[in-house]
Amino acid sequence: MPLDPARTVEELRELQELTGDENGAQRVAWTETWERAREWLRAKVDFAEYEVDEAGNEWFTLRGESDRTLLIGGHIDSVPNGGWLDGCLNVIAGVEVLRRLSEEGTPPLTVRLVNWADEEGARYGRSLFGSSAAAGSMADQDELRNRVDADGIRLEDAVGQYGVDLDRATDSRKQLENAAAYLELHIEQGPVLESLDLPLGVVLGTFGVERHLITWTGQAAHAGSTPMDRRRDALAGAAKLALDIRRIAAETGDGAVCTSGGVVCKPGIVTSVVETAEQLLDQRHLDAGRLAGMLAEAKAVSERFAGEENIEVAWSKIWSIEPILFDETLVRLAEEAVTEVAGASHRLPSGPLHDAAEVSRAGIPTVMVFVQSLRGLSHTKLENTKPEHLELSVRALDLLTTKALQAG
Amino acid sequence: MPLDPARTVEELRELQELTGDENGAQRVAWTETWERAREWLRAKVDFAEYEVDEAGNEWFTLRGESDRTLLIGGHIDSVPNGGWLDGCLNVIAGVEVLRRLSEEGTPPLTVRLVNWADEEGARYGRSLFGSSAAAGSMADQDELRNRVDADGIRLEDAVGQYGVDLDRATDSRKQLENAAAYLELHIEQGPVLESLDLPLGVVLGTFGVERHLITWTGQAAHAGSTPMDRRRDALAGAAKLALDIRRIAAETGDGAVCTSGGVVCKPGIVTSVVETAEQLLDQRHLDAGRLAGMLAEAKAVSERFAGEENIEVAWSKIWSIEPILFDETLVRLAEEAVTEVAGASHRLPSGPLHDAAEVSRAGIPTVMVFVQSLRGLSHTKLENTKPEHLELSVRALDLLTTKALQAG
Repeated sequence: MPLDPARTVEELRELQELTGDENGAQRVAWTETWERAREWLRAKVDFAEYEVDEAGNEWFTLRGESDRTLLIGGHIDSVPNGGWLDGCLNVIAGVEVLRRLSEEGTPPLTVRLVNWADEEGARYGRSLFGSSAAAGSMADQDELRNRVDADGIRLEDAVGQYGVDLDRATDSRKQLENAAAYLELHIEQGPVLESLDLPLGVVLGTFGVERHLITWTGQAAHAGSTPMDRRRDALAGAAKLALDIRRIAAETGDGAVCTSGGVVCKPGIVTSVVETAEQLLDQRHLDAGRLAGMLAEAKAVSERFAGEENIEVAWSKIWSIEPILFDETLVRLAEEAVTEVAGASHRLPSGPLHDAAEVSRAGIPTVMVFVQSLRGLSHTKLENTKPEHLELSVRALDLLTTKALQAG
Repeated sequence: MPLDPARTVEELRELQELTGDENGAQRVAWTETWERAREWLRAKVDFAEYEVDEAGNEWFTLRGESDRTLLIGGHIDSVPNGGWLDGCLNVIAGVEVLRRLSEEGTPPLTVRLVNWADEEGARYGRSLFGSSAAAGSMADQDELRNRVDADGIRLEDAVGQYGVDLDRATDSRKQLENAAAYLELHIEQGPVLESLDLPLGVVLGTFGVERHLITWTGQAAHAGSTPMDRRRDALAGAAKLALDIRRIAAETGDGAVCTSGGVVCKPGIVTSVVETAEQLLDQRHLDAGRLAGMLAEAKAVSERFAGEENIEVAWSKIWSIEPILFDETLVRLAEEAVTEVAGASHRLPSGPLHDAAEVSRAGIPTVMVFVQSLRGLSHTKLENTKPEHLELSVRALDLLTTKALQAG
């Protein structure tokens, strides 16, 4: 049975029918709908060996001539009201590649498809749950244990319902022991490939991220009785920084992005100058040094703005992660595969994180292929990719698999 | 018994002791604490005729040789956690003036002290309740009726507990029938007199106010995967306007103020470009034409910013009021009184609204005297004025009363 990329598109629609509604995909991890999707997947891959690890990741194995293993990964969980492609495209395309390999006999390396558990972190705010456990970077079980969802249900209890014992989740590390390479296909979730009119691209790595909460403190004062030159307006500091981060990103270049996702003003009433403005800042770059430079520059200008406005500014880190660069050899192989399939390729960084980043951090040579997203939309039911591009992406993953198996 | 301004300061402290706590004054209108303050006031002015009108305003009358009436007004209600002076200084200073007049025999005009009901609007968001009823500008009884407080209690029921029938509140208009003049003393609630090192000033009128909600609409997009030049960031529009209103106020001059009291961002998360920013704008000026000019200029630049950012902008009016200019003859008399008492005077507009604005709108010649506020603070327990300045303010109100009675 030769590769049938059209079947992948059909199966994606089948899954959406089974686990979505008029608001989009509803496969939130650790829910009944997620489990229904996993049952559906297991039935599709009944020709391979099945195993679920201590973190809830599902592994489908085709034994090869060698114990060395080629991994293909994705995640079937979604955000609430999510799109029909984010995460599950990778899994279902991987199923198609496994089918083709299975028909052809014993592959030179063992090939395993992994369905990572809870990539999105939609219910408990902890993304990359299963892949971080397997990669050995889940260091925060005690903090995780007591997280609660919107209904007050503890994470430990929710994962326990699906057979996961939080204390043993990192035992899943043994799954990566013989891994020679890790391949992941994903929708881009951004507008770059569409703007270049290219169906496919190769991912250089995932951005490093610096996330901070910046608190500007001025003085509440009556909007009617306080002359303009006597004000200490916290919003002015936040406004200046919200605009200046665009200059910082532009001057840093090479895909640098800076985002101020929100400002919360207190007292926040029409009759008062803003006393406190709490501003969210997210900065990303593929180069660790330039990311650090962007952060330092933002801090420096914030001090300048605070001085200009006679207000105070304080920074507190929310979260950060270093940039992760994918494997150069695999990037070259992926580029060959994409070019053969689509006639052209483009190298781009990934702004969002992916399970691939965790696998790469664990030392496994890793690469990702992106397929064009229409209008760059994701995490919404409006997420979409042309069927012909989806089919090309399955062909590219399949060809990359062949090349990676040949490279050994 | 001659005028005793020190007694006014003592009585202000007595009232604060009776109706305040460690967080400040708690005389919110239509509450038990407010009623306790009113009882205390009634006992202080037992030498005058007493009447409560259909809007809950209390009137203390000294009959004069003529039915023509000189009014002195203030409000004993406060915001929650308010200051010890806002509103009640006017009332208690008025009591002292009435005492002095009462000792001296029959004044040439009838003199009435009014304690307006619910100037602050702290519980139901409707400020100037009693004075707008008496002035005939309360046109919104049906809307008021169904307002609820934080505990779900309807305004109609709350005022009913204090003898006010909303349908009859505007019958209080007859109280202003013979009014020849209205005088009000108030703390400045701003920093102008302190910056000029002057204890007292004369108020030219109250600012006109334009209040708008400005909604900027862009496109939510992933903070990691959306290149800077593809973004439609609603926060950028709000940030530009928050900064540019300072230029607009400066170029308009003559005390113009513009305030952006808050911006609410949606989705408001660290990983997304802001899709919607709802921005509050308050603009004030004493000149109607210049106020209209400031509004027009803000609308014009908002359209420009929306174009620059490829986002949309929409304006909706929250509330507006025209500027109210006080009576020129009374302003001159007040200036004479202040200069005689304090050696110097200063003319300034009032940014906050006051009951005096309602009385003036009703066609009664009106003027206000301001006494210095320390650090311009008000609506907080930190509100303060030096005792010696409070005493000067009582003397100024008393002298102004004498001058107004002589002018007839």
